[in-house]
Amino acid sequence: MELETISTGDELVRGRSPDTNAPWIARRAAEEGVARTRHTTVGDDLEALAAAFAEAGARADLVVVTGGLGPTEDDLTREAAARAAGVGLVFRPDLLEEIEARLAARGLPRIPGNRVQARLPEGAEPLPNPLGTAPGMRMAIGRAEFFFLSGVPGEMERMFDESVRPVLRERGGGAAARETIAAFGWPEARVDEALADLWPRRDVRLGLTAESGVIRIHLEAEGPGGRERVARRAEEVRRRLGKIALEAPDLPRSVALLLARRGAVLATAESCTGGLVGKLLTDVPGISAHYAGGVVAYADAVKRDLLGVRASTLSAHGAVSEPVAREMAEGVRARLGATLGVSVTGVAGPGGGSEEKPVGLVHFAVAAPDGTSATRRRFPGDRRVVRRLAANVALALVRRWLRNA
Amino acid sequence: MELETISTGDELVRGRSPDTNAPWIARRAAEEGVARTRHTTVGDDLEALAAAFAEAGARADLVVVTGGLGPTEDDLTREAAARAAGVGLVFRPDLLEEIEARLAARGLPRIPGNRVQARLPEGAEPLPNPLGTAPGMRMAIGRAEFFFLSGVPGEMERMFDESVRPVLRERGGGAAARETIAAFGWPEARVDEALADLWPRRDVRLGLTAESGVIRIHLEAEGPGGRERVARRAEEVRRRLGKIALEAPDLPRSVALLLARRGAVLATAESCTGGLVGKLLTDVPGISAHYAGGVVAYADAVKRDLLGVRASTLSAHGAVSEPVAREMAEGVRARLGATLGVSVTGVAGPGGGSEEKPVGLVHFAVAAPDGTSATRRRFPGDRRVVRRLAANVALALVRRWLRNA
Repeated sequence: MELETISTGDELVRGRSPDTNAPWIARRAAEEGVARTRHTTVGDDLEALAAAFAEAGARADLVVVTGGLGPTEDDLTREAAARAAGVGLVFRPDLLEEIEARLAARGLPRIPGNRVQARLPEGAEPLPNPLGTAPGMRMAIGRAEFFFLSGVPGEMERMFDESVRPVLRERGGGAAARETIAAFGWPEARVDEALADLWPRRDVRLGLTAESGVIRIHLEAEGPGGRERVARRAEEVRRRLGKIALEAPDLPRSVALLLARRGAVLATAESCTGGLVGKLLTDVPGISAHYAGGVVAYADAVKRDLLGVRASTLSAHGAVSEPVAREMAEGVRARLGATLGVSVTGVAGPGGGSEEKPVGLVHFAVAAPDGTSATRRRFPGDRRVVRRLAANVALALVRRWLRNA
Repeated sequence: MELETISTGDELVRGRSPDTNAPWIARRAAEEGVARTRHTTVGDDLEALAAAFAEAGARADLVVVTGGLGPTEDDLTREAAARAAGVGLVFRPDLLEEIEARLAARGLPRIPGNRVQARLPEGAEPLPNPLGTAPGMRMAIGRAEFFFLSGVPGEMERMFDESVRPVLRERGGGAAARETIAAFGWPEARVDEALADLWPRRDVRLGLTAESGVIRIHLEAEGPGGRERVARRAEEVRRRLGKIALEAPDLPRSVALLLARRGAVLATAESCTGGLVGKLLTDVPGISAHYAGGVVAYADAVKRDLLGVRASTLSAHGAVSEPVAREMAEGVRARLGATLGVSVTGVAGPGGGSEEKPVGLVHFAVAAPDGTSATRRRFPGDRRVVRRLAANVALALVRRWLRNA
């Protein structure tokens, strides 16, 4: 079963608006055991639309198109679909009546474009759009069955669930068994190598994604016994990854889980990350029992006054140094009465680097009941990349202490 | 000049990871006056990749492909490009040496896959990847020139700017005149209405996007006098939006600019946003002279001990209240010796709401030399939405004080 999606609209093809529809459809289809094979974005151009429809119709079994059904001049989906199918457009008075009734019910004015919305390609069947005014449509183009949905996310999602999902459920291979394992601490290539002999085995398909040092291994299997195969393979993957396999889908949730397990409370002292570590931790609902808060010590005076870093340490070693990282972590732990304090101080760039302390150099410390440990790292990349990696390393150091203690 | 993009990877075609590369490229190309005509996403499937490359090569002038250049088994871009061009792969010992030197410089191990990364389709030219280990490539397929870039956003952006952008600049129709105005404070519909008669005027095209309350109006015009037309229309748009039109492309940069203009220093006291306001401010390079830092006061004890919020205020009004917001802002201003203190305390959800203090209720205060003002808002949406909107409102309140003072 080959599923494709097509998103239409100048704002999408020019990159002005993010396309949330197409990934949503892919995820929804995966839940029904159908893997999307291709996605296409085209602008509001009649020929380009008709060509994209005809090409997908020659390749796929099922195609979901979003957008271009509105009443304005750049809504060309109906006309392009008719052209791709080689049929004419038929005016449907019943649809116009329905559209006008919906507009009236919402106190919206009729416009001439509504007449255009009531024209469907010959042989097309209107699809209900419970949250909007204009119906979608369902028709064959080439060998594929096409579903044309609204481009407005709320309307699209409702139309998809009512009209497309039952078809996927019926024709899809049945939901695939799926599991994702997140890991942090090795480069992607080392993870790949550790799983080298598992990639070619087709009983469970493996995929790998990486973002800011967090590597995710996706396992998937269809058919009878799929769930058991995925569970066994996931256990094998976890065994090979050892300590770097996270307890939860991401670092903040792993830290939250381990804090809860140990009944520990964390506090953060951030310089170059400026609050990002706190933000990531508080993305996790319900963390308030185990995250006290922290200090964003961007200025040296704040490191001194709120964290108790000694002026002599700052002047002797500079703000980006191991001794300052240690005193920050110890200070935030003591002043917030937390079990653990973690600190980050570094040069995020683009300015502020020197030969001795280049952009990307970051010092970390974890202050704990059994003492304080410090780490330094040098990250490649720009300010954004350095800050994200630094925040993740800070979380990973907390996780390590919680696992080992 | 027809530009297409192709994103590769199972994680993208299945909808597991968001594709930020393709919209970024479209926006960057638009800055050079080149409008993308089509985008395609395909998975890690050799035949599907080769077909997508060949089709785009038959249609477009220039194609930018991202992803699939890594050292793992599902990195198939090189092989698919060779197949689409009808050529073989050639092993380049010089590239392997370069890759291994880069790995060594970062202390990473060599793996067998690195040898695969040193194979290029016949006739392809390697493209430098300054932030990564594997080179990209440039080659002809069909009538189009292809640029193959890393799928890692940081690496891709650098490669694009160094290798692709100059080509677009040379061949693009001459950059269209363009300006974007960011605004914050009105609902989208009100902005739309304020500009109603400007939409149909074709001498300057208008577009509107919205994200977490920040509305952006995009103006664009081609041809002779385009720059002047855009400048005049932008002035008109700014006039109609009045105080809600920002000084910079986003709220953090507007605040940074106004702080610098007034020589003021800001401090933040965050509860429900957990560091997000600080994170947003420190996304701006060079803000350290005007942002001292702040306190993430997630626990009530931190509000008391580090910010000086009185225990009696907390017990009488609760943490999510105007009096606590006021004392937080005043406390952080005094303790960090800042010109301005801003505070956020609210119920981000999903838990913690009550009839009196529902999820989405957030109190803010700005403590300034002329006194403290407080604001409350009730946001719709989930935890993530509430936190983002709350952070933006906090920044907007600081901006308002800086503009009016």
